[in-house]
Amino acid sequence: MALQFEIQAQDPKTAARAGVLTTAASVIETPVFMPVGTVGSVKAMTQEMLEELDARIILGNTYHLYLRPGHDIIRQLGGLHRFMSWNRSILTDSGGFQVFSLGDLRKITEEGVVFNSHIDGSKHLLSPEKSMEIQIALGSNIVMAFDECTPYPAKYEQVRQSLQLTSRWAKRCRLAFDSMADRQWQSLFGIVQGGVHHDLRVESLEQLLAIGFDGYAIGGLSVGEEKSLMYDTTEFIAPRLPADKPRYLMGVGTPEDLIEGVARGVDMFDCVMPTRNARNGQLFTTKGRLNIKRSQFLRDQRPIDADCPCKVCSRYSRAYISHLYRAGEILASILCTYHNIYFYLDTMKRIRHSIRSGQFSEFRESMLSNLSLGEKA
Amino acid sequence: MALQFEIQAQDPKTAARAGVLTTAASVIETPVFMPVGTVGSVKAMTQEMLEELDARIILGNTYHLYLRPGHDIIRQLGGLHRFMSWNRSILTDSGGFQVFSLGDLRKITEEGVVFNSHIDGSKHLLSPEKSMEIQIALGSNIVMAFDECTPYPAKYEQVRQSLQLTSRWAKRCRLAFDSMADRQWQSLFGIVQGGVHHDLRVESLEQLLAIGFDGYAIGGLSVGEEKSLMYDTTEFIAPRLPADKPRYLMGVGTPEDLIEGVARGVDMFDCVMPTRNARNGQLFTTKGRLNIKRSQFLRDQRPIDADCPCKVCSRYSRAYISHLYRAGEILASILCTYHNIYFYLDTMKRIRHSIRSGQFSEFRESMLSNLSLGEKA
Repeated sequence: MALQFEIQAQDPKTAARAGVLTTAASVIETPVFMPVGTVGSVKAMTQEMLEELDARIILGNTYHLYLRPGHDIIRQLGGLHRFMSWNRSILTDSGGFQVFSLGDLRKITEEGVVFNSHIDGSKHLLSPEKSMEIQIALGSNIVMAFDECTPYPAKYEQVRQSLQLTSRWAKRCRLAFDSMADRQWQSLFGIVQGGVHHDLRVESLEQLLAIGFDGYAIGGLSVGEEKSLMYDTTEFIAPRLPADKPRYLMGVGTPEDLIEGVARGVDMFDCVMPTRNARNGQLFTTKGRLNIKRSQFLRDQRPIDADCPCKVCSRYSRAYISHLYRAGEILASILCTYHNIYFYLDTMKRIRHSIRSGQFSEFRESMLSNLSLGEKA
Repeated sequence: MALQFEIQAQDPKTAARAGVLTTAASVIETPVFMPVGTVGSVKAMTQEMLEELDARIILGNTYHLYLRPGHDIIRQLGGLHRFMSWNRSILTDSGGFQVFSLGDLRKITEEGVVFNSHIDGSKHLLSPEKSMEIQIALGSNIVMAFDECTPYPAKYEQVRQSLQLTSRWAKRCRLAFDSMADRQWQSLFGIVQGGVHHDLRVESLEQLLAIGFDGYAIGGLSVGEEKSLMYDTTEFIAPRLPADKPRYLMGVGTPEDLIEGVARGVDMFDCVMPTRNARNGQLFTTKGRLNIKRSQFLRDQRPIDADCPCKVCSRYSRAYISHLYRAGEILASILCTYHNIYFYLDTMKRIRHSIRSGQFSEFRESMLSNLSLGEKA
């Protein structure tokens, strides 16, 4: 079977749950955070480092890999796992979010999205069938249905038409996937749209359930709406997703968002924040964020986070990392990224442990209180 | 004692020799190649990687560290070793080469060199005393005397005046160093100048010998002269340096230059080539160089070098690295740098082994023949 999912603990006071997701490639304890490896590399990390950090699943971007090096090359070279030498799980997005982000460079029709490459301007069509073809060629363990990420803000009727297009595309994805995929390897997730409207979220979910998927994602959040709306929408829709399938909140988020998402019943997350912010010098700690660019750190011999046992905090000082950042050294990106991924994965580990030990609410309160001590973003 | 040096094997046919250099920080087998860590980081490497690669000594640049973060900060933070978390040996250059490279931004007088920072234009004086003060503050194991790197080409009389200035500065370095340095920690090397003129090299050497140093470097080569002149000058002067002290050919060079330098009696080398070229996609192999940018590598599943046992060649393909390079991924710099440093350090290890086993000339011939198989630089 392509994917197994078992819930092993359920928090009594919230919708938080802990379990195990098993793909053909690896065993993944949930709730899980998936580091983003856009073009076949989690930026500034070696695969050895990701293994050392105990990442069990990473995300690849269909749009980027389709344009460069191309899915045909990757298929000929044995798939993305072999291409990048990563034998644990890979989830690929559908390419939808990236092409919609191209703005004037893309046009949406019933067939799909015609767009111009951000690299060389060449013209391409990304459709449900094409997205399946690419993701199957990449050999990802979890394939995402090609959806329209509804813009925010949008009128109610626009959101409705968008989610219905997503549902029609989801059906085509299911058909294309089933006709192509090696079911020993790969599974397909649907994406619930519907903006911040509860009834539209339900409409989207019902249409996806009628098609049937191996997991369900919540799309179209963290795209500019108020945080309270993001939490509210998640709180409404997450518990309505099938309890026996993994639930994935796409593109989210901050450490606070992760614990709030888990409390609302989410099992999977991904976000560029730990990696991208690292390259901009922003570090996540148990006491909130700190920006290594600030001159106060130039003589600070302490580690990034005195409570962090990661390899970076065990060895390097804020003063050194601050210097590396100012000098434009690649090592600054490496060390900051390593620490941030450690922090994200360790946070998820603590969350899982707290759910299993029945201490989730206490952990949530204590973590949120500590996180508020640091700098604000 | 700050530094011990013992020659343990001498090639019968050439001036090549193998030995052990011991500083307060580490035991270094010679001949040795020192990776360059300009501003406190060997670019794109973690210190863990350098340890894994078995680098025993790295080079730091006085000019860069003086400007950023500043030697006072580094001293307050416990010296460069502690600052960057590197407990093996460090050699620092004098800053001379960098300030002379500033061209119009610097002015040379008997006192020293007045220059404007390449970072913010601020005005500074680097003199023999100042260079000693900085290097002692950095806490490097091997301190280099502040010299004038004679330009090439230059008139005979200009070369002579330049080497004499270097000698007067060397004397001031010796006095300043002896009045400041903790002799348990640090040792001082002199730099022989004199361009490509044998008699001027001898004049420079005699003046330095009269002062007395813990090691002797050959400066002013690999600065634009014909390769044959570089080899000829090294061949003339290296064997005249004291046999019981380490001999250091500064800023050299290609793999071919290393073996030719060793054949002429050199014990130590440094060069940015393996690290800088890596970031430009140029890789060194036992069969010559290859440039990973070339499109022929996009579908090439082989490692960089099939004969190389390094971690990069054991895991990643040319196709993947070529893709990473084109996509501008940091991982391309990490993997290429790791391999190139492995190649340089492994080449030195093979050279040392060949000297000790009496096979140096055979190894030299075979290595030069293999290196010529690849692309030309």
